[in-house]
Amino acid sequence: MVRSFIHVEPDSHFPLQNLPYGVFRPRSGGDPRVGVAIGDQVLDLAVLDAVGYLDPAEAAGQGLFSKPSLNALMALRRPAWSELRQTIRRLLDAEEPALRDNAVLRQAAFHKQAEVELLLPVEIGDYTDFYASRDHATNVGSLFRGKEQALMPNWLHLPVGYHGRASSIVISGTDVQRPLGQMKPPDAAAPLFGPCRQLDFELEVGCLIGTGNALGAPISVDDAEEYIFGLVLVNDWSARDIQAWEYQPLGPFLGKNFATSISPWVVPFEALEPFRVAGPAQEPKPLPYLEQSGKGAFDIRLEVQLQAESMKEAECIAESNFRYLYWTMAQQIAHHTIGGCNLRPGDLLASGTVSGAEKGTRGCLLELTWRGSDPLKLAGGEERVWLEDSDRVTMTGWCQGDGYRIGFGEVTGRVRPVGQGGG
Amino acid sequence: MVRSFIHVEPDSHFPLQNLPYGVFRPRSGGDPRVGVAIGDQVLDLAVLDAVGYLDPAEAAGQGLFSKPSLNALMALRRPAWSELRQTIRRLLDAEEPALRDNAVLRQAAFHKQAEVELLLPVEIGDYTDFYASRDHATNVGSLFRGKEQALMPNWLHLPVGYHGRASSIVISGTDVQRPLGQMKPPDAAAPLFGPCRQLDFELEVGCLIGTGNALGAPISVDDAEEYIFGLVLVNDWSARDIQAWEYQPLGPFLGKNFATSISPWVVPFEALEPFRVAGPAQEPKPLPYLEQSGKGAFDIRLEVQLQAESMKEAECIAESNFRYLYWTMAQQIAHHTIGGCNLRPGDLLASGTVSGAEKGTRGCLLELTWRGSDPLKLAGGEERVWLEDSDRVTMTGWCQGDGYRIGFGEVTGRVRPVGQGGG
Repeated sequence: MVRSFIHVEPDSHFPLQNLPYGVFRPRSGGDPRVGVAIGDQVLDLAVLDAVGYLDPAEAAGQGLFSKPSLNALMALRRPAWSELRQTIRRLLDAEEPALRDNAVLRQAAFHKQAEVELLLPVEIGDYTDFYASRDHATNVGSLFRGKEQALMPNWLHLPVGYHGRASSIVISGTDVQRPLGQMKPPDAAAPLFGPCRQLDFELEVGCLIGTGNALGAPISVDDAEEYIFGLVLVNDWSARDIQAWEYQPLGPFLGKNFATSISPWVVPFEALEPFRVAGPAQEPKPLPYLEQSGKGAFDIRLEVQLQAESMKEAECIAESNFRYLYWTMAQQIAHHTIGGCNLRPGDLLASGTVSGAEKGTRGCLLELTWRGSDPLKLAGGEERVWLEDSDRVTMTGWCQGDGYRIGFGEVTGRVRPVGQGGG
Repeated sequence: MVRSFIHVEPDSHFPLQNLPYGVFRPRSGGDPRVGVAIGDQVLDLAVLDAVGYLDPAEAAGQGLFSKPSLNALMALRRPAWSELRQTIRRLLDAEEPALRDNAVLRQAAFHKQAEVELLLPVEIGDYTDFYASRDHATNVGSLFRGKEQALMPNWLHLPVGYHGRASSIVISGTDVQRPLGQMKPPDAAAPLFGPCRQLDFELEVGCLIGTGNALGAPISVDDAEEYIFGLVLVNDWSARDIQAWEYQPLGPFLGKNFATSISPWVVPFEALEPFRVAGPAQEPKPLPYLEQSGKGAFDIRLEVQLQAESMKEAECIAESNFRYLYWTMAQQIAHHTIGGCNLRPGDLLASGTVSGAEKGTRGCLLELTWRGSDPLKLAGGEERVWLEDSDRVTMTGWCQGDGYRIGFGEVTGRVRPVGQGGG
């Protein structure tokens, strides 16, 4: 197995096989720039590019790594991303002396992850949220409309999705303020106003678009993966009571737009290739524009941890897998653009809550507690139906290789009470 | 009445009282820059700023007018916009010699509107579409759910809205490609795929946010107007058949995101002050966070014209008024941010279709033809239920003052058949 001269623990999320991109600022000061995670280090691509070590890659020598977002890099095409990845991989290889034996450059180009601040890696133009897990859609539908009509008639024919809010996407680690809003309990005569009482998380995976398409020019399902730059974890915080009152007939609005958190490291799509698997069988057969050749799902293990203020450590409350998704990323992209809608570099397409068939694989409290009828029992006597103030939710994910992990790091956030400011 | 030394026809949309901002490029060449419409001319603010004529306004001397969007100007606050507006108004006044009598500068600073290309004036981060006309919501509800349940229970309690697609917002004059998509006619056993058969327009007014708010910091209803930079006309093209099949339970997606057109001139909010009126009475009384002191509606006359390829000229098919809106812009902003959602300079909040109570005041074909049961009869024997290829839809709007008009110009677009490329 290939190894780097940088030490990587066997359970590290960031071995030489991963090389995710992020945007960081050293805590000691300096401008934001682009880096790559390796073990517990960050490799500073702006430094490597400045000394010509990335030449002759197409992405080199253009100042792409001295920017506060990955967008300019993402706007290139797949061959350029691939070439850059190979260049970085070679430079980090244990057998390659160029960087390994240049002590001065190593000193300048590596930062400990603990000593940098990770920033939102992408300027997200548009954020789309899908609803692509059949188990999630079925559970939610059963809870709100009963078992018989759990799935809407359209669900098996197209990847249902809606437009989310880009401005309130925040980086992992940002506290999330409990939203105020209108809600109407079933027994109330008129709507009430106050802090959300049914605050939830949603375990999702986000697909970041690299290359864009022109308005009016759909992307075919078999070309769609060429447009994916990489993936992140997404926590799509949800105010269930606000959402339930507002969502008809135009969909979720304030119930979702107070915050969406993403993980800082963008795992390159190419790194996931060994973990490609077949997704669930699709019956009825999708219309031709959605019919993907080959396997379109990915085996990414996902976990949700919850830690109340009284708990010494976080407790795992759900284990899911990205492979449970019914509609693949390629199908989502093909559907999104079939009417001519244009995607731009940096757009985020999130999967929707990733739930499996078993109780412990459900990706949000709404499902885990069956809308409150089955509270979660946690360490130290804590019980949860919905999130309480000071609760911390942490999501993590990884692909398990033979002796290594392609990891996503984590997306974490703590609930802050109303009125203490957010962001 | 104040007059400019630039000749302005009495029915011009752009007298000295208006002074809308736009972004343009002379057809003879040059970079995009910011201008102001006056009569049939464009005043080039980049030129005026370069020679110090805008000093000592806060907005001057920062290169704000040599940019391809208004965003940097919009990010300033109301006092700076007001001061700039007064400066430009003074420079254009018939009694003010500084610009009037400087022949060389006049030559450089004025372009005929016919000789410039108008560009998308704003980089729109997030686009929100409301549903704020009671008549529109009632008509649509009656058509889809019957008269008894026309308005959803939430409608009179909050301004219903949803997130739209920012990437596919185009400038007036851009052709709009008929979208492909899935639809399911009531008598079909399975969904069909093909070109949209129920293509519609929606007559809307868009509010462009200037100053933004921080995440977690709501804007109060009585402060909300301070955040509005200006207004444009919006045609929110809609594919009714695609929308009908896809929209449950998460709202419109591909039925709306293939194109949204806006007018090029941003009418300053301040220019609308003389046309402030009371909107419809609100009963039940809104919750305190939505209760606005004073009048929050504006008397803006709106028109839709349709021209089929066979028609020599466009025919007016609807006359409406922005004052019909039930929920005001201030209420929309207060609601949008009450949960903590942040607005950013350049965000677009559109009103939703502006319909009145009378048949001829309905702002979309769905309502005008009562879902196809009452076709529109046009000149030369043309008849319309939905838009056909090559149809041109033009919307216009203005406030009628005593001897002058504060006009919005127009937003126009022609339907192009599938497969000829868009954008």
